[in-house]
Amino acid sequence: MMNTPMAERMNHIAGSVIRKFAEKAATDPTLITFANGNPSAVTFPVEDMKRFYDEALTTGYSESLMQYGTVQGFMPLVNFLKERLAKKYSFDWGENDLFIVSGGTQAVDVASKIWLDKGDTVIVEEPSYASCYNIFRCYEAKLQGVPIGEDGIDVEAVEEVLKTNKTVKMIYTIPSFQNPTGFSTIIEKRKKLYELACKYDVVILEDDPYTELRFGGEEINPIKSLDKDGRVFYTSSLSKVIAPSFRLGYLVVNKRFGQNVNICKQCMDVHSNTLGQYVAWGIMTKTDYDAHIKLAQEEYRRKSTLISETLKRTIHPSCKISNPTGGMFIMMFMPDSIDAEDFVWKGIDRGVVCVPGSGFAIDGEKPSHSVRMCYSTAADDQIVKGAEIIGKLTWDMIEGKA
Amino acid sequence: MMNTPMAERMNHIAGSVIRKFAEKAATDPTLITFANGNPSAVTFPVEDMKRFYDEALTTGYSESLMQYGTVQGFMPLVNFLKERLAKKYSFDWGENDLFIVSGGTQAVDVASKIWLDKGDTVIVEEPSYASCYNIFRCYEAKLQGVPIGEDGIDVEAVEEVLKTNKTVKMIYTIPSFQNPTGFSTIIEKRKKLYELACKYDVVILEDDPYTELRFGGEEINPIKSLDKDGRVFYTSSLSKVIAPSFRLGYLVVNKRFGQNVNICKQCMDVHSNTLGQYVAWGIMTKTDYDAHIKLAQEEYRRKSTLISETLKRTIHPSCKISNPTGGMFIMMFMPDSIDAEDFVWKGIDRGVVCVPGSGFAIDGEKPSHSVRMCYSTAADDQIVKGAEIIGKLTWDMIEGKA
Repeated sequence: MMNTPMAERMNHIAGSVIRKFAEKAATDPTLITFANGNPSAVTFPVEDMKRFYDEALTTGYSESLMQYGTVQGFMPLVNFLKERLAKKYSFDWGENDLFIVSGGTQAVDVASKIWLDKGDTVIVEEPSYASCYNIFRCYEAKLQGVPIGEDGIDVEAVEEVLKTNKTVKMIYTIPSFQNPTGFSTIIEKRKKLYELACKYDVVILEDDPYTELRFGGEEINPIKSLDKDGRVFYTSSLSKVIAPSFRLGYLVVNKRFGQNVNICKQCMDVHSNTLGQYVAWGIMTKTDYDAHIKLAQEEYRRKSTLISETLKRTIHPSCKISNPTGGMFIMMFMPDSIDAEDFVWKGIDRGVVCVPGSGFAIDGEKPSHSVRMCYSTAADDQIVKGAEIIGKLTWDMIEGKA
Repeated sequence: MMNTPMAERMNHIAGSVIRKFAEKAATDPTLITFANGNPSAVTFPVEDMKRFYDEALTTGYSESLMQYGTVQGFMPLVNFLKERLAKKYSFDWGENDLFIVSGGTQAVDVASKIWLDKGDTVIVEEPSYASCYNIFRCYEAKLQGVPIGEDGIDVEAVEEVLKTNKTVKMIYTIPSFQNPTGFSTIIEKRKKLYELACKYDVVILEDDPYTELRFGGEEINPIKSLDKDGRVFYTSSLSKVIAPSFRLGYLVVNKRFGQNVNICKQCMDVHSNTLGQYVAWGIMTKTDYDAHIKLAQEEYRRKSTLISETLKRTIHPSCKISNPTGGMFIMMFMPDSIDAEDFVWKGIDRGVVCVPGSGFAIDGEKPSHSVRMCYSTAADDQIVKGAEIIGKLTWDMIEGKA
């Protein structure tokens, strides 16, 4: 009989609630799904992918595309991304360097490995992407939630934590079109957050996977653009602009941490799959990539408008929805009398699946009163139909009819 | 000024010595390289890869190949590998399950995340693949080396450690064509090792990336085939049978740890790149995969014979070489008077690059007296030429002429 004890951390991490509901949706194709955080399939550049896989294995072929690659990534892709980020956000490549990672999740894993000791605290927006909570827990860090509102992370709450809790090592933030709320942090608060990080000497991990999916409002520079002393680790992803199955993203850090990133990634997967990087580079440099991004933005703008307007028209007035200007998520905040898990199961009975706010809470057992809806994958008519079901359900539950 | 302290683990992990010498080789194409642990380029199924990428994006296309996939992997590939491993090694899928991982390195990362707490000890063969030492160190484990000889891991030394050190949690072994020695552990010792793991209630992490590359001797079942109580985590890789740049491997664990693997992988990269998995599945099921493996085995047999015979003919009699019956590595053991790093640098001056034994030691600063030669990538004439240079250098150094 085997009695070997597992590592302590295994007591503190749990399976993803999002995946639970997403898998529910997958097993019943008649359900309208707002559960999966999947990009819209019309944004997948399938033809171009075919073209560049073909190129990589014929005219573009070299043995180096097959062998172990450099940890940093396929250098043409690294260099293109640097150029794009310099133009778009004024990232300074004299100070910083960029690493290809196997999706934004791995970037969070790398940052955690570099910074987190047992007992350190990570300040997180709450609600936020719970898989990252799990990553921090893997390194035996404690989590301290701070609220996030329409204009972003609550910087006063951050300061309050920093003042009183000396174990804080890192602030984790999704500044744009946050998962799950769809909120974005305004520039004044980004500045304030960076000042606080400097004042209290902590790291900012800026997770920005939706940044290219802006369809409204003004462009806001990442916190990384403000980073004078190299304390911001910035990550973004190709999952939402090319395809999630690629498992590619990037991590930008001050050069003095380059070797640390390098070693940590060696200890994870050595490097990210090279052919995928070649294809991403091909798509970005040999097709009209800006047009491709524009297409995705328009797709999300239309779907976002559809769900917002339908919800506004149909939900009970005691419910509020967020007003995303980009990304894939909208969140509905319901009165405390409505338990979100209950709401979600009732929604499933009526043919639509969302994710309850508890899926984004530090303590997933606590009742929540909000639901995340991802509007990216359902067809337009299904979005309207699904949102109408949600709207009707708010009335029925609040009026005690469901 | 940023003064945020990095995590304690960062003091204990260092860059790969192998990569240092491999990069040396990469920057000077006139060098004959025995440094990189790269597969032979003739074994890359480039045409077939092109075929199946094309298929995946045309007739085989489905949206699921683009979206986030299941953590376990692309199920047709999972199922094929299960079938193959059942046939080849009698793996029991009633008891076990298989997960696709992003290369064998990630499997070691997963196993470490599940099992290792700060202060736990991992028994490792010494010399062994030092990147795994680093992975264990990432989880703040201590390493305890045991010798490995021609017939494999020193099981008496393992028992001695287990008897006296109650912090041992895991035994890490590369049972076949070990990196760097090329040694294989005989079946009697595999059985004994498993018995010891049971007796002292520790986990075995069996790392078997070279298993398909056998070109001599009898097939030996993995320790996992003997595993009655589910304490063996078994991993192998597609890097040596398809291509390293794919970053695909697999991890076999008892079903009761399936959910733990699932959660840990969610915290690393969610899942491995799907198109690569589709292509691997295509190659394995729609081409003559056994013929492909046979081709690789023949390639390595020829190259191994060339380097062995040339070394036998040219090295100083006080030097010994291993006698691999598979895989990509041969090791030369020199007298204590020869410092291996010194030897390697002198070899580089003469046009050939190997990796010193110190690159595989727990304490990389300690002098070593062996060198690893990887014979898989150099052309046949270069193998002979390189091995002759090595042979001559042993004489020159032992006779004080170099």
